[in-house]
Amino acid sequence: MLNRKDLLGTFDLSKEEILSIIELAEQYSFDNKNNVSNSKVLSNITQINLFFENSTRTQVSFEIAGTKLGANVVNFPLNNSSQSKGETLLDLASTLNSMFPDLLVIRHPNSGAAQLISEKVKCSVINAGDGNHEHPTQALLDAQTIRKRLGKVSGLQIAICGDIAHSRVARSNIFCLKTLGNSIRLIGPKTLIPSGIEDFGVAVTHNMFDGLQDADVVMVLRLQKERMGGGFLASEREYFHYYGLDEKKMKHTKPNAIIMHPGPMNRGVEIDGDLADDLNRSVITEQVEVGLAIRMAVLDLLTRKHPLRKKCQE
Amino acid sequence: MLNRKDLLGTFDLSKEEILSIIELAEQYSFDNKNNVSNSKVLSNITQINLFFENSTRTQVSFEIAGTKLGANVVNFPLNNSSQSKGETLLDLASTLNSMFPDLLVIRHPNSGAAQLISEKVKCSVINAGDGNHEHPTQALLDAQTIRKRLGKVSGLQIAICGDIAHSRVARSNIFCLKTLGNSIRLIGPKTLIPSGIEDFGVAVTHNMFDGLQDADVVMVLRLQKERMGGGFLASEREYFHYYGLDEKKMKHTKPNAIIMHPGPMNRGVEIDGDLADDLNRSVITEQVEVGLAIRMAVLDLLTRKHPLRKKCQE
Amino acid sequence: MLNRKDLLGTFDLSKEEILSIIELAEQYSFDNKNNVSNSKVLSNITQINLFFENSTRTQVSFEIAGTKLGANVVNFPLNNSSQSKGETLLDLASTLNSMFPDLLVIRHPNSGAAQLISEKVKCSVINAGDGNHEHPTQALLDAQTIRKRLGKVSGLQIAICGDIAHSRVARSNIFCLKTLGNSIRLIGPKTLIPSGIEDFGVAVTHNMFDGLQDADVVMVLRLQKERMGGGFLASEREYFHYYGLDEKKMKHTKPNAIIMHPGPMNRGVEIDGDLADDLNRSVITEQVEVGLAIRMAVLDLLTRKHPLRKKCQE
Repeated sequence: MLNRKDLLGTFDLSKEEILSIIELAEQYSFDNKNNVSNSKVLSNITQINLFFENSTRTQVSFEIAGTKLGANVVNFPLNNSSQSKGETLLDLASTLNSMFPDLLVIRHPNSGAAQLISEKVKCSVINAGDGNHEHPTQALLDAQTIRKRLGKVSGLQIAICGDIAHSRVARSNIFCLKTLGNSIRLIGPKTLIPSGIEDFGVAVTHNMFDGLQDADVVMVLRLQKERMGGGFLASEREYFHYYGLDEKKMKHTKPNAIIMHPGPMNRGVEIDGDLADDLNRSVITEQVEVGLAIRMAVLDLLTRKHPLRKKCQE
Repeated sequence: MLNRKDLLGTFDLSKEEILSIIELAEQYSFDNKNNVSNSKVLSNITQINLFFENSTRTQVSFEIAGTKLGANVVNFPLNNSSQSKGETLLDLASTLNSMFPDLLVIRHPNSGAAQLISEKVKCSVINAGDGNHEHPTQALLDAQTIRKRLGKVSGLQIAICGDIAHSRVARSNIFCLKTLGNSIRLIGPKTLIPSGIEDFGVAVTHNMFDGLQDADVVMVLRLQKERMGGGFLASEREYFHYYGLDEKKMKHTKPNAIIMHPGPMNRGVEIDGDLADDLNRSVITEQVEVGLAIRMAVLDLLTRKHPLRKKCQE
Repeated sequence: MLNRKDLLGTFDLSKEEILSIIELAEQYSFDNKNNVSNSKVLSNITQINLFFENSTRTQVSFEIAGTKLGANVVNFPLNNSSQSKGETLLDLASTLNSMFPDLLVIRHPNSGAAQLISEKVKCSVINAGDGNHEHPTQALLDAQTIRKRLGKVSGLQIAICGDIAHSRVARSNIFCLKTLGNSIRLIGPKTLIPSGIEDFGVAVTHNMFDGLQDADVVMVLRLQKERMGGGFLASEREYFHYYGLDEKKMKHTKPNAIIMHPGPMNRGVEIDGDLADDLNRSVITEQVEVGLAIRMAVLDLLTRKHPLRKKCQE
């Protein structure tokens, strides 16, 4: 069970909470693959998706997750309309609250936005990414994918490579994977690793060969192209040479190491295209598939006690 | 009952019609708050939202209203596509009619657009705002909010402040509140009050202190920032000084007067931020909540005789 | 029955397949007109609309078709987001596949895009227009409209007028109408008729009076205004003079000839406005109506054997 109103991050999730989400997601994964319908679970539940940043795949994943469970899903249209009208985020939260949604999925460019809104609304809030802060469902789906492929998600050596500084995916994964009992190494150029991050109990290196040594899991982060040339990085070609994942660098990992990427990929920038397509090692499409199941599990668990749900499905 | 095909304005609504909408909305308000599901009311009914102007909250309110009643809601995507292709409004109406919707909710920048379309389509049309003309559901939700807070919506002194000239909200409220038997005072700078408006049976003043005297209700209109500097107004600061609602001006109203605003607000322009947040007097979030219920009532009442609805819910 | 996974074009459809779609569509046409609900046909089926080009009416037609059959319809938002992030079409297809849709409706500016995606995903793909290649549901709805109005859709003389070179509508209609046993004449300026098109078994003329001689059906294509002045055409006025359909040119057809247009129309460019509105000859709004039924039939037929559909509706 998930005894909380909101899912704002992985920072304060207990091991038991993480495992209960993963286990329910495994059930939904099985059902999705085997055409088992779960379309009554969220009957009469209203889910609003509030995406202040374009994020096709995460938004669609949450939308399909809601509709597969039978929820009424409404996408809040944010073509700079309400924002351009000068409305504050808190006024918007108050407006939303007055429309009686039961679930609110929010993505926002500012760190802390999901929490700010969650304090103002009665319904459950799911953080689908806030600034450089957290993106908890991504970390949960990564954990489930690892467990599915490697049979466990504890005691592993996990390398996270790339733009750690601007990555909510990295932060959420660090919290989640630490809580589950794994060792984590962060790899990236100095400009893209925040100073003091070692305090979270992770190792840091600026050399891919060192960082990948005996890794069970290699998580490659998406490189925002807008970082290029802005004092952060020299060029895409140079970045790929030092930090792009390729066959040569993969030789340092454990032989059965898996490769993960939150998508969408920049082939030839942070990862070699052929490697990304190697289904023996790359689990990138599996991550998307698991993502749907994780989101179904979270939507389900957060509304278990909702009065509109007559009985709990266990 | 509402014995009409369309809801195009409040101009020709009878007192009985207004009250029947408000009373059904009160039922829906109660149900929404108490998690009573009404998801079978509009089963198999197809509702199309056709918003030629960005209006996040009104559109979402109509969308949630429809989905809470179990309708199939389709948002017509108007990213300048069909319009940029040079299609006339009448051709579009004809296209829509051939897709067999049962309800059409339309917002359009041109006054009269909703009526034009309603003459061309078989289904019920709801005007969600047409140019400077009408926005009937806003007026209906305002009337219901007043009744809820003050116990009645007749015999009251109601002040409407701001940009009357460009406000469909003001027009719909004038018609609706007059029909219900209230006295209305319009307050605003000369450039923003249309000449001859007194013919509608309303008082006009350009001084807030005069206009707010003994008012039971103060309706503040949203100031379109694009009016600024264009010969209409000097500056936001000057506007706030003369016409922005603040504590000092509120001293002239009746002690228990309520404050309304159709949202989204420009804090510090037409209304003081603290006043807007004072839940003893400001009913702004209540308006949104009531808005959802009013839209549910209108969608329900206009389709009572639809063949796809087996029996009427009374 | 339609024994295929996808509907990518009319090129390889047999006469029997075309007729089975048309016959089911006629049933849906009747149901739509008579308020017979079919909302259980696609229960629990997830349909994703993936429109890389703005196409309001086709997208809405597919969305309403899906919802009327009870499918969960999700519009993939393509506000240049995922594409601007540099994702390849094949990566996107792989992402989509991992979300377990059952039906994928795709429109794309590149010829062959629908087929490319169909090879990568497990679910059924419907081509809603790919570049200058095919737009099969438009051709099918045209065939059904002709049969409805003229009582048959074989042995007819059919004229297709305008920008043949850039028209997927023309191509799909040529394949479909030839398979059904009609004679086809293409009419347009030399710059807008591809050389070698006679190999498809059609006649070509650059003169409207010749081309319309004794025609039973006149299909007018939409003229993309962006073709103007670009070496293709002189001016809108000149185009209308030579190729715009008007009363004078219509005198050459059979007396009961019908006029078709895929919409949206440019009145006064490719067709005279009064002629378009003449309900005795113009079947343009009927085409939209039939379009909804054709799309319902295709969505239904392609998923007949889907495990989520317990029993076939025949």
